Amino acid sequence: MIQDSHYLRGYARALALVAARATDPDAVALFARHASEAIEVEQGLHVSLLAGLGLSPTDVQAAGAGPTTIAYTSYLLSVCATGTFAEAVAAALPCYWVYRDVGRELLARSSPDPLYAQWIASYGSPEFDAVVESVLAVTDGLGDDLGPYKRTRCHEHFAVTTRYEWMFWDAAHRQLTWPV
Amino acid sequence: MIQDSHYLRGYARALALVAARATDPDAVALFARHASEAIEVEQGLHVSLLAGLGLSPTDVQAAGAGPTTIAYTSYLLSVCATGTFAEAVAAALPCYWVYRDVGRELLARSSPDPLYAQWIASYGSPEFDAVVESVLAVTDGLGDDLGPYKRTRCHEHFAVTTRYEWMFWDAAHRQLTWPV
Amino acid sequence: MIQDSHYLRGYARALALVAARATDPDAVALFARHASEAIEVEQGLHVSLLAGLGLSPTDVQAAGAGPTTIAYTSYLLSVCATGTFAEAVAAALPCYWVYRDVGRELLARSSPDPLYAQWIASYGSPEFDAVVESVLAVTDGLGDDLGPYKRTRCHEHFAVTTRYEWMFWDAAHRQLTWPV
Amino acid sequence: MIQDSHYLRGYARALALVAARATDPDAVALFARHASEAIEVEQGLHVSLLAGLGLSPTDVQAAGAGPTTIAYTSYLLSVCATGTFAEAVAAALPCYWVYRDVGRELLARSSPDPLYAQWIASYGSPEFDAVVESVLAVTDGLGDDLGPYKRTRCHEHFAVTTRYEWMFWDAAHRQLTWPV
Repeated sequence: MIQDSHYLRGYARALALVAARATDPDAVALFARHASEAIEVEQGLHVSLLAGLGLSPTDVQAAGAGPTTIAYTSYLLSVCATGTFAEAVAAALPCYWVYRDVGRELLARSSPDPLYAQWIASYGSPEFDAVVESVLAVTDGLGDDLGPYKRTRCHEHFAVTTRYEWMFWDAAHRQLTWPV
Repeated sequence: MIQDSHYLRGYARALALVAARATDPDAVALFARHASEAIEVEQGLHVSLLAGLGLSPTDVQAAGAGPTTIAYTSYLLSVCATGTFAEAVAAALPCYWVYRDVGRELLARSSPDPLYAQWIASYGSPEFDAVVESVLAVTDGLGDDLGPYKRTRCHEHFAVTTRYEWMFWDAAHRQLTWPV
Repeated sequence: MIQDSHYLRGYARALALVAARATDPDAVALFARHASEAIEVEQGLHVSLLAGLGLSPTDVQAAGAGPTTIAYTSYLLSVCATGTFAEAVAAALPCYWVYRDVGRELLARSSPDPLYAQWIASYGSPEFDAVVESVLAVTDGLGDDLGPYKRTRCHEHFAVTTRYEWMFWDAAHRQLTWPV
Repeated sequence: MIQDSHYLRGYARALALVAARATDPDAVALFARHASEAIEVEQGLHVSLLAGLGLSPTDVQAAGAGPTTIAYTSYLLSVCATGTFAEAVAAALPCYWVYRDVGRELLARSSPDPLYAQWIASYGSPEFDAVVESVLAVTDGLGDDLGPYKRTRCHEHFAVTTRYEWMFWDAAHRQLTWPV
C-alpha cells in the first residue's frame, strides 16, 4: 500500500502530461480530471486503508519509493513527457485496464477482510469501470491516425507498462528493496 | 469570446504542465483540477455566451486563434514545459488574478446586458475568488526556496504574462488579425 | 541583429527539444549538433557583426527580446516541447529553409557593405546548404508514418513559423516594440 | 556493451533535455554538444568494440534494452523532462563522473585485452577529463541559487543515479533479464 501511494503520485503527474499533449479539448479535460482524482484516491482511500494497517503518511514518506515503483513511474513520466499523445495513452492504459479487470475479478470472489473489501469495491465499481471505458474510447480513436512505425511504438509501451504492472505486484509480494 | 475559447484550451494545457511538475501532491491535484475546469468553462459558459452572440463551435474553429492569443498561450506553454514549477506558477498567475480583480470590479458596476452580466457573475463569484486564493497560497509558499536569480526569472514571467493580459483585451477591442 | 541573438538562444533550446524527442539516434545527434552550433553562430558571427555595429553583449541583454522574437521562440518551444517529433521538425524547418534561400538569393546579388557580406556569406555557404539538406532529408522521411490529422497539424506549424519568419524581418525593419 | 549502446541513446536524449532547460547560452551549447557526442561515441567506439566482440548493430537492436538500462534511462529522462535545470544536471552528473574516475583508475592498471584497453583509453583520456570538469564547473555554479528544498531534491537525484550506475554494471555482470 505504501508503494501504491508513491505510485499514484507519479501516475497523477504522468496523466497531467497526457492531458498537456492532447489536442482535443475533451481529452485534455478527461486526463486532467483523472490526474486530480488519482491524488484524491491516494489521499482518501489510501489514508483510510493505511490507517487500517497502522501506517501514517509520515511512514509512507519515510519508507520511500521502491525500485520497481521508481522504474515504473519513471518509464511512464519519460514516455508521457517525450513521446506523442498516442504513445502516452498507450503507456498509461494498462494501469487503468489491469485494475478494472483485477477489481472486477476480485469483486466476484470478494474478501472477508474489510480492508481488502474496501479496495476491491473501489476498483470493481461501475464508476471506475466508466473511467476505464472512457480511456478505451480515446484509445480506439487514435488508431486511424497512426502510421505503422508509431503503432509499433505504442504496442511496445503498452507491453512494457503491462510488464511493470506484474512486476509492481510481484515486488509488493516479495517486499523487494534496493540492492545498494 | 472566440479568442477566449482558443485561449482557454491553451491555458488548460499549460495548467496540466504546471501540475506535472509540482512535487507536492496537493499542488498536482489543484492545478490538474483547474486544467479540467478551464475546459469545462470553455465548453459551458462559452457555449452559452457564444450562442447568445449567434456563434457556434464551428465558427470558433473556423476563425482560428489570433496573433495575441497564439503568442500568449505559446509563452505560457513554453515556460510551463521548460521552466521550473515556480516559474510556471508565476507565468500562470496573472490570468487567475487579473480575471478575479476585473470580475470583482465589474460586479460592483454590473452590466444591463445579460451576456456581460453572466460573464461578470462567473469571474466575480466567491467560488472563483477561492480558486485564486488557493493559487496565491501556493505562490506565497514558493518564495522561501527561491534563490535571487530564479526569483528574478519568476518576476519576469509574471510581468510578461500580465502584459499579455493587457494585449489580449486590447487585441479583442481592436479586432487584431495576422499581418500575413 | 540584437533580436537575432535572442532568437538564436530560443531556437537552440527548441532544437535541443527536437533532438530529445527523436527516436532515431542519427536524428538525435543531428539536432543536438545544430543546437550547439546555433549558440556558436550567435556568439561568433554575431559578436563580430554586433561589434561592427558598435554593440556589445551587454547591449543585447539590456535591449531584451522584442514581441515578435518572444512570440516566435515561444511558439517553437511550445510545439517542440509538447508536440510530436514530426510537428517539432515541421515548426523548426522554415528557419533553416528561409535563411538558406535568402542567403542564396543575396549571395547572387551580394552587398558592398562588409557586415552584410559576412552575414550573406554564412547563410549562402555550401556548409549551411548541407545543414539544410540534412534536415530536409529527415523531413522527407517523416511523411510515410503520418496519418491525415497529424499531417495537417505539421502543415499548420510550418505555416505559422513561416509567417513568423516574415513578421520577424518586418519587426526588425519597423523596429517594433512592446505596446505596454 | 549492448546495454551500453541502449543506455547512450537514452542518455543523449536526456542531455538534450538538460540543454533545452538551461538559461545560460554556454550551458545550452555544452549539453547539446555532449548529447551529439554521446551518439557519436555509441556509433564509433561501440561499433568497433562490438565488432571486436562479434556483434552487429542488428544484434544490439534484437537484444533490446534490459530492465536496469530502461529503469536508469527512464529515471534520467523523467527528471530531465520534468525537473529543474539544477535537478537535471544533478541526475546526469554521476554518469560523467563515475566513468571518468573508473577510466582514470583502470588507466593506471591498464588491460592486456585490446578491446578493454580501447574502452579504458577513451574514458581515461584528458579529453574526457576536460568534458567532466566543464560539467562539474556548471554544477558548482548552481549551488548559490538553490533553496534548501531544491538542494535536497538535487542530492536525491544524484544518489539515485549513482545507485543506478552501480546497478547497471552489476546487471551486466549478472546478465540480468526481464522477469516476464
